[in-house]
Amino acid sequence: MHHASDILLSLFIIFVAAQIGAELATRLKLPGVVGEIAAGCVVGPSVLGWITTNEPLEVLAEIGVVLLLFSVGLETRLDDLKKVGRSALLVGVLGVAVPFALGSAWAHAAGFDWSKSLFIAAAFVATSAGITARVLQELGALARVESRVILGAAVIDDILAMLLLGVVVALQAGGEILVGQLAVVLLEAVGFLAVIGWVGTRVMRRKSHWLEKPASPLAPLTIVLALCLGLAFLSTRFGLAAIIGAFLAGMIAAETTQRETLEHQTQPLLALLTPFFFVLTGSKIDLAELASAEALATLAVVTLIAIVSKFAGGFLGALSLGRRGAAIVGVGMVPRGEVGVVIASLGLSAGVFSPRTYAVIVAMSLLTAMITPPILAWQLKRS
Amino acid sequence: MHHASDILLSLFIIFVAAQIGAELATRLKLPGVVGEIAAGCVVGPSVLGWITTNEPLEVLAEIGVVLLLFSVGLETRLDDLKKVGRSALLVGVLGVAVPFALGSAWAHAAGFDWSKSLFIAAAFVATSAGITARVLQELGALARVESRVILGAAVIDDILAMLLLGVVVALQAGGEILVGQLAVVLLEAVGFLAVIGWVGTRVMRRKSHWLEKPASPLAPLTIVLALCLGLAFLSTRFGLAAIIGAFLAGMIAAETTQRETLEHQTQPLLALLTPFFFVLTGSKIDLAELASAEALATLAVVTLIAIVSKFAGGFLGALSLGRRGAAIVGVGMVPRGEVGVVIASLGLSAGVFSPRTYAVIVAMSLLTAMITPPILAWQLKRS
Repeated sequence: MHHASDILLSLFIIFVAAQIGAELATRLKLPGVVGEIAAGCVVGPSVLGWITTNEPLEVLAEIGVVLLLFSVGLETRLDDLKKVGRSALLVGVLGVAVPFALGSAWAHAAGFDWSKSLFIAAAFVATSAGITARVLQELGALARVESRVILGAAVIDDILAMLLLGVVVALQAGGEILVGQLAVVLLEAVGFLAVIGWVGTRVMRRKSHWLEKPASPLAPLTIVLALCLGLAFLSTRFGLAAIIGAFLAGMIAAETTQRETLEHQTQPLLALLTPFFFVLTGSKIDLAELASAEALATLAVVTLIAIVSKFAGGFLGALSLGRRGAAIVGVGMVPRGEVGVVIASLGLSAGVFSPRTYAVIVAMSLLTAMITPPILAWQLKRS
Repeated sequence: MHHASDILLSLFIIFVAAQIGAELATRLKLPGVVGEIAAGCVVGPSVLGWITTNEPLEVLAEIGVVLLLFSVGLETRLDDLKKVGRSALLVGVLGVAVPFALGSAWAHAAGFDWSKSLFIAAAFVATSAGITARVLQELGALARVESRVILGAAVIDDILAMLLLGVVVALQAGGEILVGQLAVVLLEAVGFLAVIGWVGTRVMRRKSHWLEKPASPLAPLTIVLALCLGLAFLSTRFGLAAIIGAFLAGMIAAETTQRETLEHQTQPLLALLTPFFFVLTGSKIDLAELASAEALATLAVVTLIAIVSKFAGGFLGALSLGRRGAAIVGVGMVPRGEVGVVIASLGLSAGVFSPRTYAVIVAMSLLTAMITPPILAWQLKRS
């Protein structure tokens, strides 16, 4: 019983910290998400030490970000996404290629051998759709063409990041790269998205009255939540992030006639659960490891490379939207967030790099996540 | 990453099983909660073995039942509860005394020594407010006087069960009972409830415009959710169940002018999270241990004693409502649910009784939880 008490205390601290952080950020004219991440850093082990990560909290955070991307999907039409398919593909590919190239060049120059350098570079690659999506949603900008390019590119980014991670892990372990196997993995992932997306939206468009059939008055919501959890699970089985499946489920639900009700009903779920994701993300930073001039200098260089390379890739890929639109897309792709943290954790536990390098990569991921929202908000308000 | 995939699969299975169970139950004219518990039994280790309990799922279940009692509190006014204070007190006290007396008499007759008998009897005592509250809510009967008596009695029940558990654990461990210490524990718990309830509702009645102050458009909801988590935590620190604090938070929020909005916004939270509580409750039954004529006979006797004793206590305590009202209260107090399971787990891990006795007590708790809702629904519809 005492343990249940501890968990409830953690839930309370995280939830309240997120509200205070978001409130302060909003008053400072910053997006609320910045305040939530910062609050996580404050209550986390680095500063106050009031919360420590454990499995139940990680699961709540995962459910939070899954629901967030589901709600973003709810505001996105597959047809609108298809219209920007070419730009999104270009942004996705260049947004992976440029950071990977620059990241591995920096790591090799910093003294790592090539196989380690490629591993480190993988942490430069994956965009965190959660951060950008939350900012776009906060500003009511999800219907803009730039937002659609960013979301489409984030899906492609995730597929490429998964392939790349497979390659660098194999290289690092001294194995060989089986091109045929990678092609199968790629085809499976793309096939999964295409089939579920195409069939799902088509069926839902015609048959959304099915959602009213169950006796429960909340049936439309419970059915699409089941779809969300189911596709989130399935997409992990295809090697993709859970949020990709959730986004897909949201897009399928966006085709229903009950879409607006669903959007309203999703709001309280986001209010309760997404704070866990952002606060836990912020709590992962390790300030002690960064408390030296050398570490800070490394961090500055790494963060600069991460920002410039991702911006350049996104900007070049989206030039068809004009310079201003391309700049929005470029900035929107910058946050790394949790994906960088996951890859860094893999690297640490595989002994690829030191706790210091780990701390630098995690800090870089969080810095990109914290720097992006205000810039993006400013850009969107200006145009 | 694979682990996250497993958790998502469990979430999906639990959620879908709950929906199917609730749907089937509703079509059979049974309360949905019966179907959810039965679904938990089916997907749990006893039958299909698709889910196994783990910590993240337990935490989700806890959040689910906390939110459920919060929403029940939202539909309850402290003033209405005070009006039935005398009946509720009587129901609470008799509803603990009668089952404890009969339970320990049975256990002693079954061959356990007195200290073990008292421990077993403690598992006969605590009513699970969650099950009854859910049925009352499903039937829209929370405003009835019988419902208020049941809810008030459930709070008193929980205080007494806590004291009783303290006593039997001390006796079992061979320690002595410190009456002074118990009095302090009792005073602390009652004081906590009285102070928070009295001050909270009074402040909220006058100052609910405070809830609109934060910049976030969902601020009333996020503030009361923070209150809910905070009081749930605090009540565990006073030895009470988390749901008591959540119920209190709900009653405080019921005094606000935003009460109706809050009720609407809580619905999706319940839809997502309460299934975890009921399905996990159902999954705890161990059918293999019960697969003998002897075990089933014991189960039948134990369940009968549990039902009759709790009904008698509740009925006698509520006679001032008339026979029909008293019968509703008596039945409403019958479910043991998770509290019986928790005490049984304590007994098993302390070596007080065998896996068979554990399975019998758990099965008794679940049987009372499954038998009550249909009877209660029938009674309420009739009157």
